Amino acid sequence: MPRIERTAQVTWEGNVARGNGSMTAASGAFTGLPYSLPARIGAVAGKTSPEELLAAAHAGCLTMGIATELTQAGTPPERLEVSCRIVMDEVEGQGHQIVASQVTVPAEVPADLLERADESCPFSIMLRNAGVEVTISRT
Amino acid sequence: MPRIERTAQVTWEGNVARGNGSMTAASGAFTGLPYSLPARIGAVAGKTSPEELLAAAHAGCLTMGIATELTQAGTPPERLEVSCRIVMDEVEGQGHQIVASQVTVPAEVPADLLERADESCPFSIMLRNAGVEVTISRT
Repeated sequence: MPRIERTAQVTWEGNVARGNGSMTAASGAFTGLPYSLPARIGAVAGKTSPEELLAAAHAGCLTMGIATELTQAGTPPERLEVSCRIVMDEVEGQGHQIVASQVTVPAEVPADLLERADESCPFSIMLRNAGVEVTISRT
Repeated sequence: MPRIERTAQVTWEGNVARGNGSMTAASGAFTGLPYSLPARIGAVAGKTSPEELLAAAHAGCLTMGIATELTQAGTPPERLEVSCRIVMDEVEGQGHQIVASQVTVPAEVPADLLERADESCPFSIMLRNAGVEVTISRT
């Protein structure tokens, strides 16, 4: 596989408490997604955050991995729904850090196949290497 | 600061090579962002990817950190533009992994202030803890 490079731009205007940021993807897939400090730590008010984007990234990566495994098993998914929750919390002496990624996948995904997808997912690998607790529930 | 939880949902339909995924933020900030295997590893074709979302997340986190430092220094930014490139590449014996996050910030941001923002940015910390090379250039 080739080297992959993906880029995004962020703009911030104003002070940290009352200012606003916006995020734009080089692909054009999203433009000017708003974020702010109050929305990051309090009520989301329709704004995204770095943590929400990481949740989408981890879920997206693992879902593609599950689709790969299902395809290789001869049972490509008609429709697969996966959610991911990123948790930030106080870590003793280190302030607020990303501490957990909690993924939920459909119960129909076989456990052995899910385990293979998780073990080869670059985001699961990166998060675990960083000491983030990755848990995957089947519901 | 309170515990923070942020969630996203992903849907995938079809096999891995020709199927399509879509990503939706629980905040409502984005809905049905498309992604696919060909767009992830080849031409982006207007689609996002887990890597692009991570680029936006890291840039977004660090930019807010820089805005915090500038505000505390009594010089809140009128407008600050930051970009981030996430690189995936082959790692010996481990397949394709996230290997680098390359951030570019304006030259006007003082170096000492930038260093403090980087050192306290949860995404810079997570990425470095995972062994990802984080570089920050001032241009």
